[in-house]
Parts: sequence; structure tokens; C-alpha cells
Amino acid sequence: MNPPGTGAETALALFTFDDSGSAHGYSMVDPEAPTLTVTEFATTRGDGIFEGIGLASGRPLKVDRHLARFAESARRLDLPAQNPAIWSAAIHEVAAALDPSGLDGGGEGWIKLVLSRGDEVRKPGRAGIPTAWAYGTVSPSLARERTVGLRVVLLDRGYRHDVTETSPWLLQGAKTLSYAVNKSAVREAVRRGADDAVFVSSDGYLLEGPTSSLVLRVGGTLVTPRPDIGILAGTTQAELFAWAEKSGYTTSYDLLTRDDLEAADAAWLVSSVRLAAPIRSFDGIPKAVDAELTTAANAYLRTA
Amino acid sequence: MNPPGTGAETALALFTFDDSGSAHGYSMVDPEAPTLTVTEFATTRGDGIFEGIGLASGRPLKVDRHLARFAESARRLDLPAQNPAIWSAAIHEVAAALDPSGLDGGGEGWIKLVLSRGDEVRKPGRAGIPTAWAYGTVSPSLARERTVGLRVVLLDRGYRHDVTETSPWLLQGAKTLSYAVNKSAVREAVRRGADDAVFVSSDGYLLEGPTSSLVLRVGGTLVTPRPDIGILAGTTQAELFAWAEKSGYTTSYDLLTRDDLEAADAAWLVSSVRLAAPIRSFDGIPKAVDAELTTAANAYLRTA
Repeated sequence: MNPPGTGAETALALFTFDDSGSAHGYSMVDPEAPTLTVTEFATTRGDGIFEGIGLASGRPLKVDRHLARFAESARRLDLPAQNPAIWSAAIHEVAAALDPSGLDGGGEGWIKLVLSRGDEVRKPGRAGIPTAWAYGTVSPSLARERTVGLRVVLLDRGYRHDVTETSPWLLQGAKTLSYAVNKSAVREAVRRGADDAVFVSSDGYLLEGPTSSLVLRVGGTLVTPRPDIGILAGTTQAELFAWAEKSGYTTSYDLLTRDDLEAADAAWLVSSVRLAAPIRSFDGIPKAVDAELTTAANAYLRTA
Repeated sequence: MNPPGTGAETALALFTFDDSGSAHGYSMVDPEAPTLTVTEFATTRGDGIFEGIGLASGRPLKVDRHLARFAESARRLDLPAQNPAIWSAAIHEVAAALDPSGLDGGGEGWIKLVLSRGDEVRKPGRAGIPTAWAYGTVSPSLARERTVGLRVVLLDRGYRHDVTETSPWLLQGAKTLSYAVNKSAVREAVRRGADDAVFVSSDGYLLEGPTSSLVLRVGGTLVTPRPDIGILAGTTQAELFAWAEKSGYTTSYDLLTRDDLEAADAAWLVSSVRLAAPIRSFDGIPKAVDAELTTAANAYLRTA
């Protein structure tokens, strides 16, 4: 880790591959220079996967959980299995290259991992070879979102809650680069005077945010939607639940509806960079913010 | 247009923008050199739109139809409106740079237009400025797909047929870069021993292929799914229908089901590059190929 003020604002590791499509090394390159051709499948088809890893005090959080989910996303998209040791080494080298004091001294930031189908234009003998990188950046503090909280709207995702089982080719539950709908949902939320969205299945079950997991508190229990209903297994939600159990809460995974959100004592959108952001209203209905639990949870999540 | 053998196999025009986000110029750059950063929104979020324009004898086909659909996709994604004259000039310059004899003398190829949300890392004063390019390539002849035909499987897309009306944030009917599911559907088709897929709505209506429109012939009528059910308005299908009407067929847009496909006299997947490819089986059920109509339609589509 660099002394404050001596690192970079961004850093980039570009992976190299053996003939199996598994990364066997990486090199640190200029993060602002053009790196990709216009025939890259990540770009032309959103055909790849990613993870976003939070940084706290310059250190990457929950690397193993992210690499495990990355492996599951690769499997669902028929992308080559990766050697987690190489990826972990690159993640830590990117983190080490960054200035841990961040943009505002908070040491915040994130590292994005991307693994794509590769280049549409295949070099001879390189069919099936992916493109991949780990890009890190420091970021402004997100303390405000974590204290003031978020106004959310519920938006239909259009799929039934059992879509993963009936139609696995729809890739629900994989963290793909095809996030145009996720970004469109946030724009729709802003159009409605809110900050973020919570997706609901076409048959009425709460799912997740476009880039976050949903967690409710009902008395002394934290509850989140069951991960088998076409949503991502939340890495930060899992870490939060592990902490909650040690702190005297019970936890559960369930089928939840709008009525459960309305009845809950408090609710959060939970993600790797923003961490636990309280929901202060949904569809214009005020929701109590549990400041004490939010502060304690985020203090833990930033040091986990 | 170059004399055969004197042009390039690929060509790339990169657009420049004014402060409104409308392209005001372009420059021809090396199509194989890295052009994009890893923070490009097309790449990190599939957040942009595209069109694929076919080339026949080195000439781009149906440029105005493609630019009209491109404008409609931009509107649905809240991307800045573009000046079609600049885009058309770039398309023709890219086409002119290519070798019209193509890879096998057939003069085939395509040009892809992309307009994205821009770079996540905003240059000062450049918020809301897109990234955009027109990339052209010659391609091997697709004559075989047009004569032998395609084995397809029907796959649930997961959405109801009225999803565009009820949930416009799902972007159905816009041609976005988020095509991971479209590619996944083709892999599922191949796993089932087929070549391509036809999406079906969750309530049982035939939709479109992952990169094509569906057209059926029932007696002297060509029929295609209604464009208001969350599918792309097919540029090649529209051209085909215009020709069919002049050739004595009637045409119609309708709600269609699997039974209609089974009962149809013939069926095609229709797209800008592959043109009209006959369906020779669906879900393993043989389908008669109308070779005469296929040949006549493709002869017209390649000169339109």
C-alpha cells in the first residue's frame, strides 16, 4: 500500500491467456489509454461477466466471495474457468497501485473485474480466448448515501420468479455486462423523483436493485429474497448476514412481496461499493431509517 | 468503390461530437488498433445501441431504414439525437474503403453502427458525450444458410407480449448492445442440435430470432409478428414485404403462435446480413423450404 498521496487515482491490469482460456498472467498498463478494439465482444454484445469489489482504506474487500461468484457467472455464460490465484494477485496489485487516501481522504474506491468472450476478430489459433482486466479507481466518499438514505421505486422486471429454473438461457442470476436495462431502470427511478429502483418479478415477488441486494429488518430478523428466484447471490448481503448472526440477529431467505417491504421495520439496498444504504421511501411512502444498525453494519463491512 | 482487390478487409470511422452529443464529424482510423478504454459504457454496461447494415456488391443496403431505427433506439435509451447526414456519410466512406470483391468474391460484408453512453470517466465539460463508430468488414458468403436453411428451436424470452407497453424500462424493441441473452439463446439452440432460436413470449406468442425477424408464408400471404409486442421493427422484413406486395403477395402483421408456425407453408428468419434464411425445421419438426420464393426474395434484397 502506498503512503497517502503517492499512489494513482486509477490502475489497470490486463490479463494474458493460455490456450485453455484460463488467465496465466497479467501486466499493469496505462488505465487511460485505449486498450480495446471496437470488435471486442464485451463492447459489441455485452457478452461477458463482471464483479465490482469495494475498497476500504485501500484494501479490496471480500475478494474470495467475489471470485466465487465470478466463477459461477462464467459457468452460466459458458466462459472458460479461471485460476483464482492469478486474479487475486492482480486485484491486490491494482489496489496497491492506488492512492489509499482516495479523492477525499476516505480511502474509498472499487475494482472492477471483467471477463469477456474475447474479440470477434479471432487471431489465428486464438478461438475461444477471452479478454479480461481488473480496473481500479479511487472514488468520492459515499457516506451521504449511507446516512441520508435512498428513495426507491418498485419496477417490474418482466420475468416470473421461477425464470432461472424454466429458462436458464435468460442468464438471470449471472452478473453479465448486459446492463442496459439496469441503467434504464435507474433513469426511470430518477424520472419518478427517486434515486434507485427495486425490481419485482412479474408475479409480484421482490427481487433486488439494479446493482444491489435488498435486505429487510423485521424485528430482530434480517431477511432477503431467496437467491433462486433469478437474482444475484449478494456478496455484501452474505457478509452482512454473517455479521448480523454474530451480533444477535437471526437471518432468513424468503419469498417477499411489496407488503413485506411495507411492513418491515427498516430496509436497505446493499452492495459492494455503496455498502448498506437505507431505504428512506418506496414509491413515495416514507420508510423509517435504522441509523444505528446502518452505522454498525457499515463499520463492520468496511473492515471485513 | 475500389476496384476488386484494392480495398481493405475492414474499415473504421470514429465520430466526434459537439456539446449537444450529436456527431458533427468523423475520422477514419485503424480498425485493428485499440480505440476504446476499459471504462467505455458500451463495454462495462452494454449501454448503447447498434445497427448492422448489410453490404451487397460493396454497397450498404437500406441505410435510411437503419438510421430511422437507430434514432428510435436512441430515443428509448435517452441517448442524444443524431444528425443522419453525418452518419450516412461515414457509412458510405467505410463501404468505399472496403474491397468489394469480399473474402470470396461475393461482395458480401456488413457495417456496424454503435452509439454508446460514452466513457464512465468524464473529461471536464464532456458529460453526456457519447462514443460512436461505424465499423465495416467484408465477410464470407452466406449463400449456404440461404439455400440449405436453418434448424431452429423455440425459446421462452420470459416477457409477456405486452411488456413494451407495461414496462418500457425493459427496453424491448430497442436494439441495445446488451445482447448476452441473445448470444446465450443461440448457444442453447446449438446444445439442442439446432442452428438458431425463435423467441416466444411468456404468454405464447412468436416474437423474433436473437438477431432476425420471423416471416411465415400462408398461401399467398406473408405474415410477421406485430411490431408492438416487444420486438424490433425488422428493416429487412419491411423491405421484403415491400417487394412481396409488388410481386403479388399480400402481407400482414399479426399475433402468431406455435400453431401458426406449424401450419405455415414456409418460414424464414430475415436479417440485414444473412437476408432471408429459410427455416427447415423447428423443435425437430421438418418444415418445407420454399426455394423459389427464397431465391427471388434474396435476389431482390441484395440489390434493393
